[in-house]
Amino acid sequence: MSDPGNIVLALDAHGGDQGLAVSVPAALAALDQDAGLEIVLVGNPTELAATLDASSRARSKAFRAAAGDAPARVRIHPADSVIAMDAKPSAVLRRGQGSSMWRAFELVAAGQADGCVSGGNTAAMMLIGVKLLGMLPGIQRPALMAYVPNVRGHTGLLDLGANLHVSAGQLAQFAVMGAVTAREVEGIANPRVGLLNVGHEDGKGHLVVREAHQMLKALPLNYVGFIEGHDIFDGTVDIAVCDGFAGNLVLKSTEGLARMLVGEFKTALAQNLASRAGALLAGPSLRRMLAHLDPAAHNGAPLLGLNGVAIKSHGSSDRKGLTRAILEAGREARRQVHLRIASSIREYQLEASA
Amino acid sequence: MSDPGNIVLALDAHGGDQGLAVSVPAALAALDQDAGLEIVLVGNPTELAATLDASSRARSKAFRAAAGDAPARVRIHPADSVIAMDAKPSAVLRRGQGSSMWRAFELVAAGQADGCVSGGNTAAMMLIGVKLLGMLPGIQRPALMAYVPNVRGHTGLLDLGANLHVSAGQLAQFAVMGAVTAREVEGIANPRVGLLNVGHEDGKGHLVVREAHQMLKALPLNYVGFIEGHDIFDGTVDIAVCDGFAGNLVLKSTEGLARMLVGEFKTALAQNLASRAGALLAGPSLRRMLAHLDPAAHNGAPLLGLNGVAIKSHGSSDRKGLTRAILEAGREARRQVHLRIASSIREYQLEASA
Repeated sequence: MSDPGNIVLALDAHGGDQGLAVSVPAALAALDQDAGLEIVLVGNPTELAATLDASSRARSKAFRAAAGDAPARVRIHPADSVIAMDAKPSAVLRRGQGSSMWRAFELVAAGQADGCVSGGNTAAMMLIGVKLLGMLPGIQRPALMAYVPNVRGHTGLLDLGANLHVSAGQLAQFAVMGAVTAREVEGIANPRVGLLNVGHEDGKGHLVVREAHQMLKALPLNYVGFIEGHDIFDGTVDIAVCDGFAGNLVLKSTEGLARMLVGEFKTALAQNLASRAGALLAGPSLRRMLAHLDPAAHNGAPLLGLNGVAIKSHGSSDRKGLTRAILEAGREARRQVHLRIASSIREYQLEASA
Repeated sequence: MSDPGNIVLALDAHGGDQGLAVSVPAALAALDQDAGLEIVLVGNPTELAATLDASSRARSKAFRAAAGDAPARVRIHPADSVIAMDAKPSAVLRRGQGSSMWRAFELVAAGQADGCVSGGNTAAMMLIGVKLLGMLPGIQRPALMAYVPNVRGHTGLLDLGANLHVSAGQLAQFAVMGAVTAREVEGIANPRVGLLNVGHEDGKGHLVVREAHQMLKALPLNYVGFIEGHDIFDGTVDIAVCDGFAGNLVLKSTEGLARMLVGEFKTALAQNLASRAGALLAGPSLRRMLAHLDPAAHNGAPLLGLNGVAIKSHGSSDRKGLTRAILEAGREARRQVHLRIASSIREYQLEASA
C-alpha cells in the first residue's frame, strides 16, 4: 500500500487543543506540500473517516490519491482513547496504551512509520517515547528543542524542561544533537552553537557551564563559546544550549513578551481614527513582520536523544503550525537524524560523559 | 549644608557608558522631580564643576539652589579614578579605592549619604557593596532585582545573576526582599509574589524550587505559588523569583527579543510610502506603546540584601533612565527598605535557612 520511497509519519490526530478539526486539514496540507510523505492518522476511526470525508469536499490532491487514483498517502490507524493534557505520568503508563499518542509511537517502534507527531501532553510524549523507542546509547533523557524566531530566521533552543539539572556532558550532548539536527534538517553546513551563560567571558558562570565550555571547545563543532540571552534573537548562533529549567523559563517568558507586544501593538493601531488609517496603509508591511513572529512559522519541536523521530507540536497550534511540525518530522525522518545523532555522540565519545 | 529632612544620594558620576554627559543632567532632573532629594556627584571635581556649570546655563532650579539662593541640593565629592566595565574582581579590590564607585559607597557607609546609584560594573558594585556596607544578618550575597514591563506596569524580577546556585532558603529570602521593596517603594499593600518554575502544579520542578514553594506557602506573604515565564508579562504577579542563572537568561533574552521586535516594527513602518504615511498617522499611539517598553521607564535595579541602599542603573542608560534610577534610590532610602527587609527576614526566621 505504501510507496517504498516515501516517508511515513504517524500523526496523533487527537493531540492538541482542537483535535481533528486541526489535525486532519494539517495532514492534508502537509501531503500537498511534500509529495514524498504518507501520513497515518491515529485516532477514532469513525470520527477520522467523517472528518477526512468532509475535508475532501473542499480539497485535496492527497485525499484524491487516498480515494484510489494513486497509492494512498493518507490512512487511518485506530486508537480508542486520548491522553489528557494534564494526565499524571502514572496514569499515562497504566492506562495510556490504547491512546492515539501511544499508538502513533507504536507504529514508529514497529517500523511501520518513520516518525511521529503529536500536539498532546509533552511529559506523556517523553514517557511513551522513552518506553517505546528507547534512548540512543549514552543519552539519559530526551531533550526538547524549540525554534525561536531571530533577526534572520530562527535559533534552535534546547533543552526546554525535560532535564532540570544537567551535567557538563549532557550540555555537550545537547550541543551535538542540536548541531546535527540543524545540519541535516536545515542544510546548514556548519551550524554555529553557543552555550547560554551569564556573560561571554571564560570565567563566567557556575562550574557545570564552565566544564561544558571546555568540552565543547575540544569537539569538532562550530562552537562560538558562551552566549547571553539576547544572542538567541540577535542571530549570533543557530543552536543555543542550556539546562531545561532555564530554557523553559526563557522560552515561556519570551513567548509571553511577544504576546504582550503584539497585543499592545494592535491596541495602539486601533486606538483612534488616525491610527486605524495608519494601520490600513502600513498593513502589508506590518503583516510581513507579524508573520515572522507567528509561532506557527516555527512550530515543531523535536524530542532529541530518542531512538526514533518524534516531533512535539504546540498544543494550541493552528493548522499552519501543525503542518509545519509534520513537514519538520518528514525532513528529520528522511535524513534519519536520530541515527546521525547517535553516530556523532559515539564519534565524539560523549556516551559515557553524561 | 544639608537639610536634615532631605534624602542624600551619592551618584557615581562616571558610572555608565556616557559618564558625566548623562549623569549630571540626570542628577539635575531628579532634583527637579523630587524636592526632598540632595545629590552628591562623586567623580573628578574639575570635570564635574565644568559639566555642572554648562548644564546650569540651560537649566535648572537645582543648580540655582546650588549656586546659593537655598541650601545646596547638589554638591561634588572627589574621586580620582573610574572602575572599568570589564575590571576583574581582584583589580577592583586592589586598585578601586579611589574610584567614583567606591567613594559613593563610602559616603553611604559613613552615614553621609542615605543611598547610592551607579551605572558602572555590576560585579564591582556587588563586591564594593558587600565590603563597605556589609550584608543584612543571615543573607549571603546581594540579589539584583530588575523591573520588567508587563501588561499593567512592571514586574520585579530577581535574582539576575549574583546567585547562580541557590538554596530553597535563599529563594524564600528573595521573595521577602522583593515583596518588602514593592510594598515600601511602590506602595502596593500586599504584593503578589510568584516562584518561577517549569509548570504551575505542585509537583513540578526540581527539589530546591519545591522546597522553596513549601516555605513560601508558610510565610505571611501574598504568595500566589509557582508561575511560568509568561506570567512575568501577563501581570499575574508583582514579584517573580528565581535563581540568578535563569533570571539573567530570562532578562537578557527578553531584552533581546524586545529590541528585535521594536527594530522589525520600525523597519516595517519605514518600508514604503504607504507604510511611512501609516506610521505618521498612527504615530502618537505607537509612541505611547514604545514608551511603555522603553528600558528607561523601568531602569534602576536595587541590590537587595546589603545593609544600605544601592541602585544599579543600566550601563547604556540615557538621562531619562538614570533619572528614574536616582528617584528609585530616593524612594528606597526614604522608606529605609534595607532595614525593613532585615526585620522581615528576622520576623520570618529566614536568617538561618539559607
